[in-house]
Amino acid sequence: MQLIDGKATSAEIKKEIAEEVKQIKAVGGKTPHLAAILVGHDGGSETYVSNKVKSCKEVGFESTLIRFENDVTEEELLEAVEKLNNDPAIDGFIVQLPLPKHISEDKVTEAIDYRKDVDGFHPVNVGRMSLGMPCFLSATPSGILELLKRYKIETLGKHCVILGRSNIVGKPAAMLLMQKGYPGDCTVTVCHSRTKNIKEICLEADIIIAALGVPEFLKGDMVKEGAVVIDVGTTRVPSDKTKSDFKLKGDVAFDEVAPKCSYITPVPGGVGPMTIVSLLKNTLLAGKKEVYK
Amino acid sequence: MQLIDGKATSAEIKKEIAEEVKQIKAVGGKTPHLAAILVGHDGGSETYVSNKVKSCKEVGFESTLIRFENDVTEEELLEAVEKLNNDPAIDGFIVQLPLPKHISEDKVTEAIDYRKDVDGFHPVNVGRMSLGMPCFLSATPSGILELLKRYKIETLGKHCVILGRSNIVGKPAAMLLMQKGYPGDCTVTVCHSRTKNIKEICLEADIIIAALGVPEFLKGDMVKEGAVVIDVGTTRVPSDKTKSDFKLKGDVAFDEVAPKCSYITPVPGGVGPMTIVSLLKNTLLAGKKEVYK
Repeated sequence: MQLIDGKATSAEIKKEIAEEVKQIKAVGGKTPHLAAILVGHDGGSETYVSNKVKSCKEVGFESTLIRFENDVTEEELLEAVEKLNNDPAIDGFIVQLPLPKHISEDKVTEAIDYRKDVDGFHPVNVGRMSLGMPCFLSATPSGILELLKRYKIETLGKHCVILGRSNIVGKPAAMLLMQKGYPGDCTVTVCHSRTKNIKEICLEADIIIAALGVPEFLKGDMVKEGAVVIDVGTTRVPSDKTKSDFKLKGDVAFDEVAPKCSYITPVPGGVGPMTIVSLLKNTLLAGKKEVYK
Repeated sequence: MQLIDGKATSAEIKKEIAEEVKQIKAVGGKTPHLAAILVGHDGGSETYVSNKVKSCKEVGFESTLIRFENDVTEEELLEAVEKLNNDPAIDGFIVQLPLPKHISEDKVTEAIDYRKDVDGFHPVNVGRMSLGMPCFLSATPSGILELLKRYKIETLGKHCVILGRSNIVGKPAAMLLMQKGYPGDCTVTVCHSRTKNIKEICLEADIIIAALGVPEFLKGDMVKEGAVVIDVGTTRVPSDKTKSDFKLKGDVAFDEVAPKCSYITPVPGGVGPMTIVSLLKNTLLAGKKEVYK
C-alpha cells in the first residue's frame, strides 16, 4: 500500500507555480491576482478562505479578501461580483460557498464572468469541461486527476466507481474520468443515496472516489485487493483531542480499507490540499489568459 | 416484452404541441419559428433536416431552411449564425452537423446564442443541464427520457448502463439519468471503446442505452432477463431491399435481445422520431421564452 501524499504533492506544485510567477515578474508580466468573497463567519468557510489567501502569498500571487456579514443582500453581493468582473486588476475570483439561505447560489455563480470563474462552477466552464473544451476545471476533481497523474496511476480501461453525484465533485469527476486520453478512458459508475447494491459495485472498482460526505462510509469489505481509493470526504466531527474541538473525517474507514489498497489518500492531507492548488493553477491560467482571451 | 413505439409516441406528442400552437395563435401569440442551416448535400443530413422542416409544418411552426454549398467559408457561416441570433422572428435554430472539415464545429456551436440553441449543444446549455438548471436539453437524451416517462418505466435506484461517451448522447444521457427525481435517480455506468468487461457490465444493467454506433453490438447473451433496452444506433448499411439502397441498423441485435427484455425500442421507429420531437419541444419553449427571457 502506498499513501498518496496530497500535502507533499501540493507543496511540490506550489513550488512550480511560484517559480513560474517569479519568471513572469522577471520579464515585467502581471502578477496573478485572486480575489475571494466571504459572507459571514462559518468556521469551515473561514478556514478555507484563509488557506486560499495564505497559499496565494506562498506562490507570489496578489490576493484580495472581500468580506460581507450574513445580512448582506443578494443585490449587494451581485454588485460586488460585477465590480470584480470589471476590474482589470483581478484575474480570477471566487465566492466562497455556502451562502446564506436568502441568497441564490445559482444566481451569484452565473453572475461571475466565466473568464474569471477560477472555481470552475459557472455553467460555461461546466459545459466546456463536459465537452472536452479548454476551460477552468472544477477544483476538487482537477486536484484528484493531478494526484493520479503525479503518482502515475493507470486509468485506461479501469473501472472507476464514484460515490456521490454533487455538482462540485461527483458529476465533474465522472465527466473527466470518462474523457479520452490520460488521466481518463475509465469506465465510470456513479453511485449515490439511491443506489441499491453499492457494496457489490464498489467491490468491482479498480478506482473508488468517495465523495458522499458520510464519515467512514466505505468499509474494508467493500474494496477489492489492489484498488486505488481517493477520499474526498471532509466531515467535521467533534473531538476533544484537537485544539479546534473537531477533527476532519473522511468517507473511508481508513484503517480497514488501507491494507487492501495499492494507493490511498488520507484525510486530512490527501485531496484537500490539492483543491487549493487547482484554484491556484486556474488563477495562473487566468492571469496568462491561456484559457480565455 | 413490450415494444416501445417511438413513432406512435412522437405522433402523440406532436399532436399535443400542435394543440398548444393552435391556442397560442388563437390568442394572437407568436408562431414558433425554427430555422435550420444545412451545409452541403450529405444524404443523412438532407434527410434529417427535411424531416425537421416537415415536422415543423405538422405542428404549425414556421420554419426556414438556409442552405450553403460545401465550399462555404467559416466566416460566411458565422455571419449566417450571427444574423439568426439577431433576428427576432427566429425563436430557435440549428446548424446541422457534421460540417465540412475546414469549418470548426466547436466555433460554430459556440457562436449560436444559447437562448436560441434548441439542439442543446452550446456549452451553456450543456453546463446548465449537468447542474440541473433550466436549459434546452440535448435532443436525443431528452427523447429517451420522454420515452421512459410515457411508458412509466421505473428508474429510481435502477442500474443504467450507457454504451458510448459522445457529447450528444452518452455523456448527457448519463448526466440526466443520475439527476435527482424522475426519470433519474439511476446508478449510471458509462462504457466505451476502452471498457474491458463490457459484457459483464451489461449483464448487470436494468436499463441499457446503446449509443456506440456499432451495428448489432449488443447481443442476446449480454442482457439480463427483464432489462429495458434503448437503441440509439442508426448506422446506414447497404441494402438491395429498400428504395434508398440502404437500411438503418441499430446497435442492438434485436432478434436475440428482444425476447429477454421487458421493454425495447426498435430501429427505425424508436429513439429516432423522438429526437425530432425534442427539438420541437425546445423550439416551443424558446418561442414562449420559458427557459430564457
